[in-house]
Order: sequence, then C-alpha cells, then structure tokens
Amino acid sequence: MKLGQLETPCLVLDESRLERNVARMRAHLDALGVSLRPHLKTAKSIDVARRVLRALDDPITVSTLKEAEYFLGHGVRDILYAVGVTPNKFGHIADLRKRGARLAVILDNLDAARAVAAHARASADRIPVLIEIDCDGHRSGIVPGDPDLVEVGRTLADGGCELRGVMTHAGSSYNCESVAAIKAMALQERDAVVTAANTLRAAGLPCPVVSVGSTPTATYAENLAGVTEVRAGVFMFFDLVMAGLQVCTIEDIALSVLASVIGHQREKGWIIVDAGWMAMSRDRGTAKQKLDQGYGVVCDTYGKPYPDLIMVDANQEHGVVALRPGTRAALPELPLGAQLRILPNHACATGAQHQAYQLVRGDGDAISASWPRIGGW
Amino acid sequence: MKLGQLETPCLVLDESRLERNVARMRAHLDALGVSLRPHLKTAKSIDVARRVLRALDDPITVSTLKEAEYFLGHGVRDILYAVGVTPNKFGHIADLRKRGARLAVILDNLDAARAVAAHARASADRIPVLIEIDCDGHRSGIVPGDPDLVEVGRTLADGGCELRGVMTHAGSSYNCESVAAIKAMALQERDAVVTAANTLRAAGLPCPVVSVGSTPTATYAENLAGVTEVRAGVFMFFDLVMAGLQVCTIEDIALSVLASVIGHQREKGWIIVDAGWMAMSRDRGTAKQKLDQGYGVVCDTYGKPYPDLIMVDANQEHGVVALRPGTRAALPELPLGAQLRILPNHACATGAQHQAYQLVRGDGDAISASWPRIGGW
Repeated sequence: MKLGQLETPCLVLDESRLERNVARMRAHLDALGVSLRPHLKTAKSIDVARRVLRALDDPITVSTLKEAEYFLGHGVRDILYAVGVTPNKFGHIADLRKRGARLAVILDNLDAARAVAAHARASADRIPVLIEIDCDGHRSGIVPGDPDLVEVGRTLADGGCELRGVMTHAGSSYNCESVAAIKAMALQERDAVVTAANTLRAAGLPCPVVSVGSTPTATYAENLAGVTEVRAGVFMFFDLVMAGLQVCTIEDIALSVLASVIGHQREKGWIIVDAGWMAMSRDRGTAKQKLDQGYGVVCDTYGKPYPDLIMVDANQEHGVVALRPGTRAALPELPLGAQLRILPNHACATGAQHQAYQLVRGDGDAISASWPRIGGW
Repeated sequence: MKLGQLETPCLVLDESRLERNVARMRAHLDALGVSLRPHLKTAKSIDVARRVLRALDDPITVSTLKEAEYFLGHGVRDILYAVGVTPNKFGHIADLRKRGARLAVILDNLDAARAVAAHARASADRIPVLIEIDCDGHRSGIVPGDPDLVEVGRTLADGGCELRGVMTHAGSSYNCESVAAIKAMALQERDAVVTAANTLRAAGLPCPVVSVGSTPTATYAENLAGVTEVRAGVFMFFDLVMAGLQVCTIEDIALSVLASVIGHQREKGWIIVDAGWMAMSRDRGTAKQKLDQGYGVVCDTYGKPYPDLIMVDANQEHGVVALRPGTRAALPELPLGAQLRILPNHACATGAQHQAYQLVRGDGDAISASWPRIGGW
C-alpha cells in the first residue's frame, strides 16, 4: 500500500522521525540522570508506546482514565493519571488498581486530599498520590511556599494514602519567546518542585518522587538536580508550535495529515483540499508566535514543505491552502486529486481527530502499518 | 442513572431542546414550501437522525463517506456527500452505491466533472452529481456567471452522469453582524443558486434540484422561491456562535459538556475543571463576535447559566472557569467535585470530541439513554 492509494484525509506518522525524536530525548535525559515517564496523551497508541518505552514495565503518564484502561489492557502497569482527581473517578480508579494497574493520582488541595484519604481508608487501598505544584501560575497546583502544602501532605500520609511525592508542569514554557527563556523556565520548574519536596521532607513527610514535565523545558534543561523523573509527550511527534519555540526543526515533525486537492479558486490563489478543521483540529497555536502557520504547513506527498504554502483557513471538511501573505514564492500547480501532507500546529490536538496512524519512513511513500489510536474518556 | 453518577467529562444532549429545535425548523421550511435534507455532520448519530427525519427514507446530507457508510448501515439511503469529490474516493462511492445508497456527489470544476464522467462510463453507474455554486466567495463553488458552469453541466450530462442540479452553502452567514444581514445573505444565497439553475436550464440541461444550506440563512429565509431543498445541521443542537448571531437563544442550546471541579486558584478567581479543549474543542468561534464566550458558558448541573461565568482558558484536560472581565457578578462557590455543564461555541466541533451523548430532558438530571456517535473518515 502506498500513500497514493489512501482515502483522504488521514493521519500519517513518519516512524524514522519518531525513532529519532525518542532517541534524542532519551539520550538527553540519560545524560541528566533522570528517568522518563512519557506522557502518552499525545500518542494514545500502544504501538507508539512500544517505540517510546524500553519495556512495558516502564512508567507512563496519562491524561484520562480511558488511556489508563487502554494501556493497562496492553500490559503497562506503572501509570500516573496526571489530572487532578475528583470523587466521581474513585470507582474507576479502584477498579483499575484491582486489575493490576499501579495507578497513582495527583491533587492540589485539602478537600481533594481529605476525599482521597477517606476513600483509601474505606477501601483499604493505599493509593499513591503526588501533590501538584504550581511553578509558573499557569493553571493548577500549590505554590511551594503555601502552608497548605504540608497540610495536604500530612492529610495524605496520615490518612492511609502513599504520599509518593510532588509533580509540576511548566505550561508557560509554551509561551517563551527565546531558548534562553525556556532554559530559565526549566530552572524555575525544577526549583519550584525541588523546594516543595524539601518542604515536605523538612516536615518529616516522605517525598521519593520529584517529577517535572513539558517538552520545551525537558529539551533545554541543563541541570535537573533533585528531580527524579520527566514527563513529556509532544517530543515524540513534535509540531509547528514546538518548531516556533526552537524546540525542534520542521524536519523533526513526525505527524502530518494527508489531504487531496478537490478544487481551486484561481483568482484568489486558493487551493481547496479535503482536510479542514475536523482533520487538523481548530488549534491555532502558532497564531501568537512570530510566524503564524495558519492551520498548518503544506508539504508534498513525501513530506517536503512547499515554500511559504500554508493552510490559511479551514471549515469542517474543507481547507483553504494559499501562499503566506507577502511571500515572493509562486503558487505550485497542484491538480485535482494531488496529495499533500500538512504539518500540524499541535500534535496532541490534530492526533485526537483521528482513529489511526498510517506509518511511513522518511521520504518514502510505502505504508508499513496502520496503528489504531484511542479517544474519549 | 443521574448526571451526578457520570464520570466527567462527557457530552450531554437535552432531548426536549433537540425536539423543539427540529420542530421549529420543520415548521419554518414547511411554510416556505421546501424540503429539509438535514446535514448530519453535526450529529453523526442515527439516534439523533431518527428525531430529525420523519422516516428513514428521508434525504440526508453528510460530510464524509464514513457518515454515508454509517447511515446506510442504519437504513438511510438518500444521501448527498457534500464535499467536492476526488478520484481517490470513487472506489468507496461505487461500493456504497452498489450496497443500495442513492449517493450523490458534488463538484465545482471541469477536471472533477471529466473524472466523474469517465468513472461513470467505466463503471456503467449513472452517478448523480450536483454542481457546487459559490454564492458568497466563502470557499468552493463556481460563480453563477462563470462560463465553466454550463461546460461542467454538459460534461456531466453528456458523460454518463445524472446531472441532478445545483447546490450552495452561504458560509459567510456565520460572519453576519445583524439579522438584517442574515436575511440579505439568505436572498443572496437563493439568487445565486437559482440563477445558476436557470443558466443550466437555458442551455438545455436538466436541473431538478436547487439546494441551499446554512442554519443562519435557513432560519431567517423569508422566500425560497426556486429552491427545492435546504441543508442545515447545527440548528438541531445550536451553540453559542448561533446565539451570538441571534439565530437562537442560549435556552435553545441542546448540547453541553458535563465537567467536575478539580480545584481552585482562589486568589486569581479561577475554578479548575476536568474539561479542557479535548472535551470542548479548540473552537473559539465567539472570539470574533460582540460577546466573546471564551471556551463556553458555564451552567449548573441542570443547565442554568451562572451569571457571567465562562471558561476563560483551556489546556488538554483542564479548563479554567472564571468570571467574564468587567462583570459585577460574584464567583459562585463551587466545591471540589461540583458538576457544571458548559455550553459550546460550536456544536459540530465539540460533538466531534466525544463518542456518545448522554440524554436528559429539560432541567431534569435523569439520564434516559446513551446514544453513540461516530467520528473519523
């Protein structure tokens, strides 16, 4: 099977780039002496996980209990569910743990700590918990200096849970405007979580795990002293937002959407394709970066970008491909049925719109496999 | 089963509002003397379709061949695939037609007309084709005065296809700034497609079907003389973009996402919930309207909006709920685990993120059914 035989739109994954991206992150974290607990919310596929994990016994991170359920079904057991837990999920979590998942949860407040502790006592299940730390004001977490931190830790440890440690996510690293700023953010992320760990330890509480995670900070971290593990996910595939942050190059992006030309509006310089926002997602993450890539960078069938050709607009199943405003590049002649590959702004969002990956290698057009992926909750 | 027992996030559909929205559109189009060929790209569910169609023999519109396949499997046969056709889909279309689908396709250029005609001759299948007309410069279509129109028609009719007529979609109606502007757009949409139909007829070509379709123009059309059918989809569920256009009220919106409070950042006035952009979609369609609703309007469990409470930001599985800037409303006290229902910007985009609807009626919290929905291509 070749790319040219596929019905469009569909999701294409370049296995060579995936392998290269994983090897680079592994080597970097090995050199820093921290372990990788990859976030599989980007991939949502056991086949991708097999290329990222060294063994099914390796630790993983997930963003939904559906992912935990799916990866457990494929033999992965050391799972961190990295979204603040709520009581309506306790039953599902208990079920996953009974079935062999070494599932840990996170939380960032006393009410949640009390609820999890009560659940742990009632079910006689010493559920492992990490306390979420706010390192950058981005969304959730306790700031390291907040007195609630020790109280949450004590509520958990005294309440029948396993207080496993602290974790944070430097979500603000996605908004950094230079490599220097990402490096500073990596230090800030580390300092926040290490400070929190030391605060817990000074209060006599255990804190074996100190976990950080974002692809930009993981890529540019130079010193992770005090940190035990890194959770990162987008690095497997990369995307245009990461390229705009200088976290990768365009040539590292492993994910693309295969589309076909369905028509032209020649006087407007538009090429209409059968991939719209349903195939690309509505993510416009590059809109706030220096180079706005619209809904994606347009490449030929083999993954080579056309100069300054982007998807400028998208309807549900229609994409409008055109030259970037102000360019001197010429619009390529792409007849009806011509196949394009479009690099996404955000791999997590674009991946989520599809149910399978079609695997290619480098600039080849042979499909070596189709890997299913999951969605939903 | 009650809403309070559901694991969050999940998609909730209010069947009373669905029925009311469908009845209103049916009554309006009956009064105008045109038939409804509902666009099922919003719903992607046979259970929803059963509430919209009077019988399975009724006509429908789809945006993917996967939808055509799915609805055919449930006994719906009169199907318009309303995205410009490309050769890589001919095999799938032929298969669907052999299995009993009265599947029609659309196109807007001579290359596509020649390709479909060649396919029709080669397969001895008189495939029905509508020519797509550009009524507003929005995306695809032939403008009514373009000499290509008659040439495309003749290529199809002489080439072994069934030239069934013309169709258009006033996508620009989503950008109208007043009801008067939508009414004007409805006239413009009708005039473009009726003019095109008359041009074909004057050239001796058949044009039995004259099809228009967008929820705003369908809602405000006052005279559809010359039009035979209306394709509209969002009207079943409605959403905040439609409310911003005055096409519906907030109380008409049948779709919402059920979410749980997972924490607070009290000094910032943030309530963190477990529905992020994965549950809401990245659609920010109200950003360009007078009232920006962020990622959605926040309601209580029973669907009643809190004053000026919206989702101001979203990560993959986290939503940040806060008061609209400048309001005098007070932030409601919503403890850990409290359930909220969030009305979406765009029903098509939010629905696509989910695999099922949980059905409620009005302000009740009993779940009467779970209806599966499809995705992908």
